[in-house]
Amino acid sequence: MIIPKGFLFSGVYGGIKKVNKNDIGLVLFENEVTASGLFTKNRVKSPSVTYTKKVLKKGVRALLVVSGNANACVKDGMKDIKEITIELGRKINVKPEQIAFASTGVIGVKMPVEKIKKGFDRLTKSLQNQSYSDFHLAMQTTDAFDKLTEKSFKIDDKKINLLVLGKGAGMIAPNMATMLIFVFTDACISQEALDRALKEAVDNSFNVISVDGDTSTNDMVLAFASGMAKNKEIKTDSIDYQKFYKNLATACVDVAKQIVRDGEGATKVIELRLKGARNKKEALKILKTIANSQLVKTAFFGNDPNWGRILAAIGRSEVAIKDEKIDIHIAGMPVVRGGIEADGFSEKKLKEKMSAKELTVDINLNMGDAGAVFYTSDLTIDYVKLNSAYRT
Amino acid sequence: MIIPKGFLFSGVYGGIKKVNKNDIGLVLFENEVTASGLFTKNRVKSPSVTYTKKVLKKGVRALLVVSGNANACVKDGMKDIKEITIELGRKINVKPEQIAFASTGVIGVKMPVEKIKKGFDRLTKSLQNQSYSDFHLAMQTTDAFDKLTEKSFKIDDKKINLLVLGKGAGMIAPNMATMLIFVFTDACISQEALDRALKEAVDNSFNVISVDGDTSTNDMVLAFASGMAKNKEIKTDSIDYQKFYKNLATACVDVAKQIVRDGEGATKVIELRLKGARNKKEALKILKTIANSQLVKTAFFGNDPNWGRILAAIGRSEVAIKDEKIDIHIAGMPVVRGGIEADGFSEKKLKEKMSAKELTVDINLNMGDAGAVFYTSDLTIDYVKLNSAYRT
Repeated sequence: MIIPKGFLFSGVYGGIKKVNKNDIGLVLFENEVTASGLFTKNRVKSPSVTYTKKVLKKGVRALLVVSGNANACVKDGMKDIKEITIELGRKINVKPEQIAFASTGVIGVKMPVEKIKKGFDRLTKSLQNQSYSDFHLAMQTTDAFDKLTEKSFKIDDKKINLLVLGKGAGMIAPNMATMLIFVFTDACISQEALDRALKEAVDNSFNVISVDGDTSTNDMVLAFASGMAKNKEIKTDSIDYQKFYKNLATACVDVAKQIVRDGEGATKVIELRLKGARNKKEALKILKTIANSQLVKTAFFGNDPNWGRILAAIGRSEVAIKDEKIDIHIAGMPVVRGGIEADGFSEKKLKEKMSAKELTVDINLNMGDAGAVFYTSDLTIDYVKLNSAYRT
Repeated sequence: MIIPKGFLFSGVYGGIKKVNKNDIGLVLFENEVTASGLFTKNRVKSPSVTYTKKVLKKGVRALLVVSGNANACVKDGMKDIKEITIELGRKINVKPEQIAFASTGVIGVKMPVEKIKKGFDRLTKSLQNQSYSDFHLAMQTTDAFDKLTEKSFKIDDKKINLLVLGKGAGMIAPNMATMLIFVFTDACISQEALDRALKEAVDNSFNVISVDGDTSTNDMVLAFASGMAKNKEIKTDSIDYQKFYKNLATACVDVAKQIVRDGEGATKVIELRLKGARNKKEALKILKTIANSQLVKTAFFGNDPNWGRILAAIGRSEVAIKDEKIDIHIAGMPVVRGGIEADGFSEKKLKEKMSAKELTVDINLNMGDAGAVFYTSDLTIDYVKLNSAYRT
């Protein structure tokens, strides 16, 4: 078990969720941390997002999370946060404006402030460095399994511990969707270096996954570095930075893929890899269109090598392509060559390969040198079942 | 039964479809017609689209349709069309380049040219003005029911007959998707007037519907006016034009809604009406985002008044809105007022109303004077079943 030094975790059930599963989580930081955050681009935002953005600028000392209620599209959402953080701040001896707050769950229902406050005694009593599982459970909603990565590596001959805890299953689209990601590390790192590493890592992981194209009002990725590994401070443009970034990026891709795998009702993760584009922006535009195509996603569910749907999705992405130049491989097998079915394409053989839980699709536009990667899931009967009755 | 004069219809089974259902259809025009067409914007296009665009400019005399095979993403697709139209042209004494050709079905499989040619004798023998149902069947694939509208009205004291035949169920998105629409009328109308009327009618009907956000390689809307009603030629900016347009537009909206109703597996049609936008472009952008949101569509399937998903879709549409100004009614009942749950909102009552087969959603952004309408379907378990096993 790899646990970054400097963080005390806890999680309890406060009665917000209908089932008895932790729904209030707390992380108390033993010392000041370097913190960085990225937030949903949805214009309909929970006050939790607005609030926490400000906290990050003021020296954050604790993180409170509530699951089962999004605190979005409600009256007095900000007032409720303030009431909650004032109460918690008193218990843990931290200024309310130094408590980051994240929420996830149903939109449009007022937070049960009293229930949350009632949980604080148990929450603060059970704080422990080892208890991150209790906390992790308290940040989840429809998740079918825990999404996390632990890593340790050396920088400046000191052992650095890195823990990424994720939450999210549906409503996942590029730019973070209904997703909470918390990164904890004991590395000592400058603000600039942490900001840059987090931004780049998220661009190549949580910003290139899609379950259903929907984004949420509450998403955030927060990173906290305690410095307790006592390494020489990591600065940008150093070898130490490269090493830190590489480990962070790998961990983020790993958790991102776990989220896609749990894409509500998903049976497989599809890695879409595109090359030969004129530039990365166009590559991402095409990949996003494929990743969100209901027809492509249902075909993958049925192990159906219906490559025409992939071509049609590329064609409607509004990028100027030449279909007669496009090559496609699925699961390493040639499927399309020059815009038509590849010689030797065997529907039967491919269908067998498509039943795997992880699949690759390689697309070459043969137009330029740019490329990108995107992760998506299949669209299944269980997705519809889960999402047609979430609220009521 | 309303049948425009000047058109002879037929349809036969040629063995392209796996089941014994007409798959080759023909319309022979008794005289020259005024013709107009609109085509898919997908960059991956069937040669059928490219070919027919050209035919429209040359004085079209017949329309051939093949279903069960899209003639898209195949080698020699254009060559096959030429071989087919040459053979047909000989039988009906029309130049091959005057035969419009439409195809729909599986992408990436070569057209069975011989099978199609073998059907021509039976096809030409059964040509009749009354037989449009035989033809209509031959343009359909996964359609669960016939989509059509017949109308008659008077212009210049002459009876004008108008028939709109539609095909399409899935892969429907704005800008025409997998959809074939053929408009037949015996009105006498100028080229300019027909072009304008068709464009406007399509913009307000087939271009504002969405089943799954996917568009196809083969879509077209073609209109043919025989002039055999012998009215004084309809020109733009006249009262006659207004009357013709109004009838055409109503017929197109009617068929468009039928297509949404048949949206593969759909159980209901949702009319999304937005007002208070700054301009129509933004209104359409928001409506399209809602119409294609998997989460909104599954909620409608479950009769789940999860208005938070509608707000979240508005928020991610990239239009600058103010959520605290937004009002939403579903089925006429107030649901959101000023971005939060409306007073007196009853989840139970609304849930009952939502089980209807036709639903309205009214959104007011309260920012400007522009508005738009969009039609969508719910996303159901049957959609996934149908589309996960279409090809194999």
